[in-house]
Amino acid sequence: MTQFLNADESRSELRWNPLTRNYTIIAPSRGKRPGSFIINEEIDAHLPHSEVCAFCTGNEEYTPPAILTLNKKNSDDWFVRVVPNKYPVLRIEGDLHRNNAGLYDVVSGIGAHEVVIESPNCSRQLADLEISEIELTLKAWKIRLADLKRDDRFRSIMIFKNHGSLAGATMKHSHSQIVALPERPYHLQTILNSAREHYSRKERCIFCDIVEFESNAQERIVVEDNYFTLLCPFASSFPFEMNLIPKKHLHDFSEIPDNELYACAHALRDAFIRLNKTLNFPAYNLVLMTSPPPRKKLNRPDYWGSIREDFHWHFMITPRIARSAGFEWGSGVQINPVTPEEAASFLRAIVIQPE
Amino acid sequence: MTQFLNADESRSELRWNPLTRNYTIIAPSRGKRPGSFIINEEIDAHLPHSEVCAFCTGNEEYTPPAILTLNKKNSDDWFVRVVPNKYPVLRIEGDLHRNNAGLYDVVSGIGAHEVVIESPNCSRQLADLEISEIELTLKAWKIRLADLKRDDRFRSIMIFKNHGSLAGATMKHSHSQIVALPERPYHLQTILNSAREHYSRKERCIFCDIVEFESNAQERIVVEDNYFTLLCPFASSFPFEMNLIPKKHLHDFSEIPDNELYACAHALRDAFIRLNKTLNFPAYNLVLMTSPPPRKKLNRPDYWGSIREDFHWHFMITPRIARSAGFEWGSGVQINPVTPEEAASFLRAIVIQPE
Repeated sequence: MTQFLNADESRSELRWNPLTRNYTIIAPSRGKRPGSFIINEEIDAHLPHSEVCAFCTGNEEYTPPAILTLNKKNSDDWFVRVVPNKYPVLRIEGDLHRNNAGLYDVVSGIGAHEVVIESPNCSRQLADLEISEIELTLKAWKIRLADLKRDDRFRSIMIFKNHGSLAGATMKHSHSQIVALPERPYHLQTILNSAREHYSRKERCIFCDIVEFESNAQERIVVEDNYFTLLCPFASSFPFEMNLIPKKHLHDFSEIPDNELYACAHALRDAFIRLNKTLNFPAYNLVLMTSPPPRKKLNRPDYWGSIREDFHWHFMITPRIARSAGFEWGSGVQINPVTPEEAASFLRAIVIQPE
Repeated sequence: MTQFLNADESRSELRWNPLTRNYTIIAPSRGKRPGSFIINEEIDAHLPHSEVCAFCTGNEEYTPPAILTLNKKNSDDWFVRVVPNKYPVLRIEGDLHRNNAGLYDVVSGIGAHEVVIESPNCSRQLADLEISEIELTLKAWKIRLADLKRDDRFRSIMIFKNHGSLAGATMKHSHSQIVALPERPYHLQTILNSAREHYSRKERCIFCDIVEFESNAQERIVVEDNYFTLLCPFASSFPFEMNLIPKKHLHDFSEIPDNELYACAHALRDAFIRLNKTLNFPAYNLVLMTSPPPRKKLNRPDYWGSIREDFHWHFMITPRIARSAGFEWGSGVQINPVTPEEAASFLRAIVIQPE
């Protein structure tokens, strides 16, 4: 929280997010234009300099052997390449132990940590690619997700992208990461619980309800087409945060039909271009929220049975233009100086050139 | 998560925090010394430059009138001064409305936002002060907390300190902040629920259990005296994170006897000096976790009745030497490259000169 953020008389409010069960303080700085949120710092300023890009074509020897490569039509060269992370935080080999440690619990660091190299050279970022090229990254995510879900040691699979050093990237070359975990993060479990409770009371998916509610309200909608809704969430934790939600109910990204990946790539490209034009190419994080693997070993087939109905995969896109401080770390409550309605109006106004 | 963090063969593990109900990935970088976590950047590098420090003695006109001032013995000049934040995120005036907004909830931005100026000039940081001077800041926190708890619009009161711009500070002058909220952050509610469940099953405070368990284990203890235990939590989310926990069970910082504030100031100073010597004066956040005001209006006197027994006030001290990325933001799970045992051994080895 910056202490002198709101030099005006506008009122703030607390908005409740029914999924995370948490509040955000929306504290608008009246009259601020998106330009005032542009960070005047090269987004890759903190990246370590390297003569050779280990992710570029021709340098395959610098990474472990590929798990998956995808080519463009009529090409023999890889365009997207998935490799194990050379320095993983969790490792795929070994037995999974779940131990008691007095008051605490310890689970061994078994998991997967993969890197998705999103194009063969480091001159183009994801938003610069053609839609059919972005589609290949989505296809790689889908294939790897489906494969990792078959490993019954895993309880959640995170797919995410750090773009720019302010978002935590350590390589300039456009890439994303996949981490499979032997446990379910509490934040994810909270969202799953919220979605389940909503469904069990109403027999409706909470995400479908949100899409319908927002589509009627319109004020937080950035853009909609037949397949996707791009919106700024009502209780956005960060300025210009966006969710990209498929209109068709589907719990698991790995079950998206191949013929809908192009529409998804189109919608993602649209979101990045709007973000880049509004905030002058900010650092951002992209996170895929998708249903986690069930706990098969518990032999309770019904326990996660309704996840097909109650969860709904989506992307969260968050520009990294604010710094968290003691208040946010201590409370878990974020202070957002831009109303989602205002953010949506700026993002909506961007004109997207067709490819 | 930096992608190339762990350039070694050491194994990682997931550790469960019974209070936050979340995991941390402890992914040690073998052989790393504390020096490798020192950030080579002036901690105040990003502070806006100003000719006049609005918090220094003589410049009182630059802040709103004081809510509270405290003097040193035998002095008529203020040493600690509490003022309303000039640009608050929440405002004290107005009626509190709790509104439904379709799928969501909205609570008006009513609250308090105060600044505690911790010394009359900006040349000394909190760790540089005499113990009896630090004691005045603790006394100010206690008095303001007790006062704000009497306002039955508030559901939680956060006291925290941002030291250095990397920790979110916007002023160099040593200060802390107090925010009273009309809602309880979900993170705090989770900790309260965990403490309550532990107590209701065992009739023991979980924090007392942790202090006893850690005191027996010793490996995560930094220092203990008759009043306080300074330790690195078992599932520390961040490198060199410390908790300062009073040995005597007490739920509410505002009920600490005045004659114990000196011991508390002594323990805090000790913690800061260890942090400064180990990490070369890092940016850090300090957060006071204390029991929130009960919901008096609900007329259910028992509902929060056991908080006296089940909660236990403490400080969380977190140096800001790591950057969060998409994985951490998306999952809520932190990756900590330093084991708490190793952090404690470095912090324990620091020799503190008596005042």
